[in-house]
Amino acid sequence: MSKKYVYLFNEGNSEMRELLGGKGANLAEMTNIGLPVPPGLTITTEACNEYYVQNEQLPAGLEEELKKNLKVVEQTIGKKLGDRENPLLVSVRSGAKISMPGMMDTILNLGLNDDTVEGMAAATENRRFAMDCYRRFIQMFGDVAMGVNADLFENALAKLREAEGVQHDHQLSAEALEGLIETYKAIYKEGTGDEFPQEPEKQLLLAVMAVFRSWNSDRAIYYRKANKIPDSLGTAVNVQCMVFGNMGNDCGTGVAFTRNPSTGEKGLFGEYLINAQGEDVVAGIRTPQPIASLEQDMPDVYAQFLNIASTLEKHYHDMQDMEFTVERGKLFMLQTRNGKRTAAAAVRAAVEMVEEGLIDKEEALMRLDPLQINQLLHPAIDPKAKITAVAEGLPASPGAACGKCVFDADTAEEMGKKGEKVVLIRTETTPEDIHGMVQAQGILTSHGGMTSHAAVLARGMGVPCVCGAEALKIDAEAKQAVIAGETLKENDIVSIDGATGRIFLGEVPMTSAAMDENFEKYLGWADDVRVLGVRANADNPTDAQKARDFGAQGIGLTRTEHMFMEVDRLPAVQEMIMADTVDGRKAALEKLLPMQKGDFYGILKVMAGFPVTIRFLDPPLHEFLPNKEDLLVEITTLKCTGGDPEEIAEKEELMKKVEALSEFNPMLGHRGCRLGITYPEIYEMQARAVFGACADLAKEGVEAIPEVEIPLVAHINEFHRLRAIVDQVAEEVMADQNVKFNYTVGTMVEVPRAALTTDELAVEADFFSFGTNDLTQTTFGFSRDDAEGKFLHSYVEQKVLPISPFVSLDEKGVGKLMNIAIEGARDVKPDFLIGICGEHGGDPDSIDLCHRLGLDFVSCSPYRVPIARLAAAQAAINEKRK
Amino acid sequence: MSKKYVYLFNEGNSEMRELLGGKGANLAEMTNIGLPVPPGLTITTEACNEYYVQNEQLPAGLEEELKKNLKVVEQTIGKKLGDRENPLLVSVRSGAKISMPGMMDTILNLGLNDDTVEGMAAATENRRFAMDCYRRFIQMFGDVAMGVNADLFENALAKLREAEGVQHDHQLSAEALEGLIETYKAIYKEGTGDEFPQEPEKQLLLAVMAVFRSWNSDRAIYYRKANKIPDSLGTAVNVQCMVFGNMGNDCGTGVAFTRNPSTGEKGLFGEYLINAQGEDVVAGIRTPQPIASLEQDMPDVYAQFLNIASTLEKHYHDMQDMEFTVERGKLFMLQTRNGKRTAAAAVRAAVEMVEEGLIDKEEALMRLDPLQINQLLHPAIDPKAKITAVAEGLPASPGAACGKCVFDADTAEEMGKKGEKVVLIRTETTPEDIHGMVQAQGILTSHGGMTSHAAVLARGMGVPCVCGAEALKIDAEAKQAVIAGETLKENDIVSIDGATGRIFLGEVPMTSAAMDENFEKYLGWADDVRVLGVRANADNPTDAQKARDFGAQGIGLTRTEHMFMEVDRLPAVQEMIMADTVDGRKAALEKLLPMQKGDFYGILKVMAGFPVTIRFLDPPLHEFLPNKEDLLVEITTLKCTGGDPEEIAEKEELMKKVEALSEFNPMLGHRGCRLGITYPEIYEMQARAVFGACADLAKEGVEAIPEVEIPLVAHINEFHRLRAIVDQVAEEVMADQNVKFNYTVGTMVEVPRAALTTDELAVEADFFSFGTNDLTQTTFGFSRDDAEGKFLHSYVEQKVLPISPFVSLDEKGVGKLMNIAIEGARDVKPDFLIGICGEHGGDPDSIDLCHRLGLDFVSCSPYRVPIARLAAAQAAINEKRK
Repeated sequence: MSKKYVYLFNEGNSEMRELLGGKGANLAEMTNIGLPVPPGLTITTEACNEYYVQNEQLPAGLEEELKKNLKVVEQTIGKKLGDRENPLLVSVRSGAKISMPGMMDTILNLGLNDDTVEGMAAATENRRFAMDCYRRFIQMFGDVAMGVNADLFENALAKLREAEGVQHDHQLSAEALEGLIETYKAIYKEGTGDEFPQEPEKQLLLAVMAVFRSWNSDRAIYYRKANKIPDSLGTAVNVQCMVFGNMGNDCGTGVAFTRNPSTGEKGLFGEYLINAQGEDVVAGIRTPQPIASLEQDMPDVYAQFLNIASTLEKHYHDMQDMEFTVERGKLFMLQTRNGKRTAAAAVRAAVEMVEEGLIDKEEALMRLDPLQINQLLHPAIDPKAKITAVAEGLPASPGAACGKCVFDADTAEEMGKKGEKVVLIRTETTPEDIHGMVQAQGILTSHGGMTSHAAVLARGMGVPCVCGAEALKIDAEAKQAVIAGETLKENDIVSIDGATGRIFLGEVPMTSAAMDENFEKYLGWADDVRVLGVRANADNPTDAQKARDFGAQGIGLTRTEHMFMEVDRLPAVQEMIMADTVDGRKAALEKLLPMQKGDFYGILKVMAGFPVTIRFLDPPLHEFLPNKEDLLVEITTLKCTGGDPEEIAEKEELMKKVEALSEFNPMLGHRGCRLGITYPEIYEMQARAVFGACADLAKEGVEAIPEVEIPLVAHINEFHRLRAIVDQVAEEVMADQNVKFNYTVGTMVEVPRAALTTDELAVEADFFSFGTNDLTQTTFGFSRDDAEGKFLHSYVEQKVLPISPFVSLDEKGVGKLMNIAIEGARDVKPDFLIGICGEHGGDPDSIDLCHRLGLDFVSCSPYRVPIARLAAAQAAINEKRK
Repeated sequence: MSKKYVYLFNEGNSEMRELLGGKGANLAEMTNIGLPVPPGLTITTEACNEYYVQNEQLPAGLEEELKKNLKVVEQTIGKKLGDRENPLLVSVRSGAKISMPGMMDTILNLGLNDDTVEGMAAATENRRFAMDCYRRFIQMFGDVAMGVNADLFENALAKLREAEGVQHDHQLSAEALEGLIETYKAIYKEGTGDEFPQEPEKQLLLAVMAVFRSWNSDRAIYYRKANKIPDSLGTAVNVQCMVFGNMGNDCGTGVAFTRNPSTGEKGLFGEYLINAQGEDVVAGIRTPQPIASLEQDMPDVYAQFLNIASTLEKHYHDMQDMEFTVERGKLFMLQTRNGKRTAAAAVRAAVEMVEEGLIDKEEALMRLDPLQINQLLHPAIDPKAKITAVAEGLPASPGAACGKCVFDADTAEEMGKKGEKVVLIRTETTPEDIHGMVQAQGILTSHGGMTSHAAVLARGMGVPCVCGAEALKIDAEAKQAVIAGETLKENDIVSIDGATGRIFLGEVPMTSAAMDENFEKYLGWADDVRVLGVRANADNPTDAQKARDFGAQGIGLTRTEHMFMEVDRLPAVQEMIMADTVDGRKAALEKLLPMQKGDFYGILKVMAGFPVTIRFLDPPLHEFLPNKEDLLVEITTLKCTGGDPEEIAEKEELMKKVEALSEFNPMLGHRGCRLGITYPEIYEMQARAVFGACADLAKEGVEAIPEVEIPLVAHINEFHRLRAIVDQVAEEVMADQNVKFNYTVGTMVEVPRAALTTDELAVEADFFSFGTNDLTQTTFGFSRDDAEGKFLHSYVEQKVLPISPFVSLDEKGVGKLMNIAIEGARDVKPDFLIGICGEHGGDPDSIDLCHRLGLDFVSCSPYRVPIARLAAAQAAINEKRK
């Protein structure tokens, strides 16, 4: 009750992001370091949360407190809200702890009414300008604060233009606008049932509540979910004296970065518009000027701005993203924040800031979201390809993309979810398009600049994007676009290069991603800091090589079943399965042996000197046979239509085997080491293949470090028996080939019982690796195949679970089990080698947990290796900082 | 090496069962308390184990030690092995720590050869007897010790009878037997390649090894597995001076119990044969005399035996099963052991022994294997039924049985495994028949007495058995039998009453089991001792009443899905599933509501004053729809044969739903509380049904104690949401009906994550109950449906697992998880109520674990309640004794 809900800008600082939101905290900070910030105040996020606790009522006392503080602002600026002579106008903006660009509502020019508009006309000596501000305010207030249909205002405006015979809004006269204001007020009354409020204080309270409500708008909720932002943060509200960039040609507004957000290159980077309001730049309606031109247009302002930019970067020790407005030649800073940047920019800026002495290496390592590295690994258009672009736009988000044209977000989402590659083409994007943007391979717009909605979002998501390609004429209704005389229809193929802005018809040759010098240096620092080892999962020499190129320190998982699935091997695998005797199976396995040996030889050779974990056959055998239901339909059809009896008999024979192998719950069925126990000849063949390869390599002088891994062990007796087979084969091969090689034998820990009994397993095993996908399935009792389609989505939606446990490790449950497993093993052997393989191994949050649990390594797909290297470093730094 | 492998009888005692086997230890004990035991020695079980460790070689030093000790025996009895004048003959018998009746080999008359047989003839003045002993010895030694085909000996004997023109063996002359001995020696040489050994010491060593080998015979292994006897025990070998019950009419042999092993009634109970060897009684070839007749036949011996029996019972504090032989009027005790008995006998004997002051109550409670109680719960033939038996045999094992006639063990096993009820009909049973006996509802033999193989085994297994029904003429070859002029063919129905020995054609009316006064008293003592509560699982009022009758202290699990499956409800359930909207589902649920309410009303009323755990809907919805594959065949057939398009469309519509609901791993799929989260209206209906019933009962003044149980919870958020629904409905019903009632809400702990997070769950839940079937499935990663058919059998066979974890709780894995769960919950609420429901709740070993873990109750099927009450008492006593 005695809580302070309102802070003047000079009462806050940049540490108070939680309470004042990012924008409010930074406005306070800028105010306090003496930068030209229009005065104002911030209503806290706590007030927002309290608003929701009290069923959308403003907390008691807030109104009083707001009034009191507003008085101080009025005194500072020498204007008064509602004062006809010298009216104060304010902007009302949202500002959460974590920036949600364009996600929330803003109301400008608040304070105007029938009275003050006249005062403003007099003060500015520009009646038309005052009227225009007023009509904009009614429109924005009606739409944003009161939910009046925005189209009604737009239609009235269009009608007026028509009636007046003008093309553009700025051609409308003050008188025409006065008429429009009356029309708008009528629309407002029609839409809300109330007169448009003439009392500025009432306007303000309504606007504050509108901002609070916008925290729970669909698009804000969607954005938070997509970005893992907690709902509990709430938004602050910033109430700030208006300054005008649209009062003439000595006015303007712009945004700029202290470094290039695409490349990281040092130097002012941004855009501005003369005689415009801030929203015009962000919305991408007019294409703005590069910031460098400001030096010609307003040399003093430019010099001052350069100076402020440098001050801010040094003050915040990070690249800044700033908004400014020039009102009649005077510069005002409206916002600063740490700038969003591409991964490449983040890496370069971080490396250079270390070299400039602005930050240290650990700080540099914390500057990049590991998942952003994905961007660096994006393909690019092959520079050697002889291809010609049909048009060019702005290079808004790097990476090349190729896909089917789609012209609306819904279709993009639908096709994308089906796994189709699409490029979303829009005049400009709005927050309503996000669900389609996340599913697209690339984004292409005809309007808007490097800081437009599409550009900002695409960079954040790592999706290639070309903006402002004005040569592109889009007819979204007809689902087509014309470019350089060619018509692009839905499903036509288009390619874009987000690094250069070029647009191509059809598919073009691409090269895979490469890492540059800065990146190598940066990851080198990560390697120095991290404690966790990073390995990759690879089933063949090509992937193994890629893993090495990305810096993997070994292979943490080689799945041998992928090898069984290959076309030339499947017949032998099926022969083995159909055999009714051990001898029959052995004969078939004999055929597979040389091929398997070749597989292992190749991988072990690429990984010479690095360990390679080879997991023995894991999936149930029926996965190698035809689908039961298909077969059932075939047989029934053959029977009904009098098919060849021999064919029927043959299929029925196959059906018998399929049925014998079919399972109610294959995930918990006859697979993994259970196959090894019932068909020891399979694992024996695999052991022979591994050690045969080792023997050959030993003779060549290549150091192979195989780690044989027995999957799905639940009981020490399983491991005991199968290890005995492996050891015996190793001994035989060494004796036969008269050669020595090293190997170890370990197990997956992927069912809870294994985790609970590592004190027994570790006595006989040399290592284990968590199979957290299966461990998550069995710990939760979730079949991933079923859960994701049936209920997991709605669990996350309804917040029963904060995130799918298949994406980030569940610390409380699965993590607890892992901890039991680790303690059990290390009690027996303090240096027992423990890793994790599978998708969690490439997820930064899961990597952080793995670090805290004391694992030796994570293993992930080769492309995730750089991500894991950085995430592991951040985990180490996080721990140190705690 | 310096181990003592051989013990003279006077060196041992009854505590040395581990080392000397049960028989050897008891022979030693009897010797030491001064009973007339023929002198002898015991070779230890360690020697047997060493024999296997050394690849079937006798351990070093054993031969020497045996020789030395034999000398002592020779001196004691004044005879010498191989001495022509006064030859010592010995028996060689197996004897393991745990009795395995008829499972292992015995060799009698060892020491006879061409020389000593003459000495024996002279000493006994009975040449024919000596020759008969010799030919029996060659036959037994050849068959048992050396593996010569027994039929060859039998055929030669039959040929001789024919040649001599006699019907019975005892009619053969000494000369004829002398000829037979030569024939037997030839058969022996033919079969073994060696001459029949004439050196008694060589005979002895071969016989000892034969006993050792018999430990690993197929039937011994099978018996051990069926009775959970560890393979590691090994068998001892008893070498004992022969006494002869077959030297004339002043000789005899018999077996007797100190109490009736069927009823427990105090008093000598047994049988004997005049002029016979011990094996004749056990094998059931001649039908023996009741022990009481011995008083007339040999009054002195009878008096002495009565005295010894009483001494032994007092000495051992338990009912004894004794073997004796009378040689020329002198009584020798050959064996004593605690007698096997029916459950009824065990209970009566235990109760009476307490009353006699022989044992205390706790000891009495330890005297019964809880699983034996099954027998008491067997049905009996309705005493009021007006039916006539076609014949009568001996009442060998109580309980009535009815089933199809089968005449061989293989067929009995095959049909029994398919779930068919069979009665196994044999002339007499042998150890080779066990696999069929265990699958039969009842056993019927035409030969053998109350202590025959069939009778002993059947009592042990709790299978009703009628023995020695001589009116029954069996032709096993032709698979039929004639009884009272009627021919019984395979698959004809027969009924037997093991309590009276009566045999009936066809099916007869039966009554269910009842518990008598002794049993009530006995279980009352168990209730005084036990700490664990015992509840039952029941889904309807009838079962609930049965549970109360058996002493259940509540219902631990009411499965609501069984109610959904009932014929009158399934249409409404299917309507609910097929509905595409919440309203559609609610309309269908509205129909189910009154029925569910009726179910709960009935159960809660029966259980007035006792808690009833009601688990909300658990199985996946597709279980209520037709099978997918059947539907697929139907549709394909309809299509191929030009079926009615409307019918096809209808089935395809159904198929769509079936497909939408079908799952890869239904066990880990969309079921349990996941249904409650996605379709809250289902649980809401169920809550309304429960509380509607409570409201009605409250108005009637009946105390209902419902415990609402949310299944398959993995995360506190699931519980939180569903409890909120339950609480709200309860509040609504109380307000609507203006009545108060108590209820609690808890959860199943059946996935590892729930077990790992009880510290969170216990904050909001009132109780939990382990669903150890699912918990075992998820902890091991075993689908029970698949594992049992695919690999679990071979896991137990190959000893990868000691026993199926679905039969007895896995202490090391699942038990550890349970312990974590219990500690987690009790840290939050020290009195937190915890139970277990499902099959483990009725398994004595699992109950012991539950006691040690500190659970509040076990819940099992009503018929298992008495078993659980006793097992819980034994668990408490076991703990105290430790």
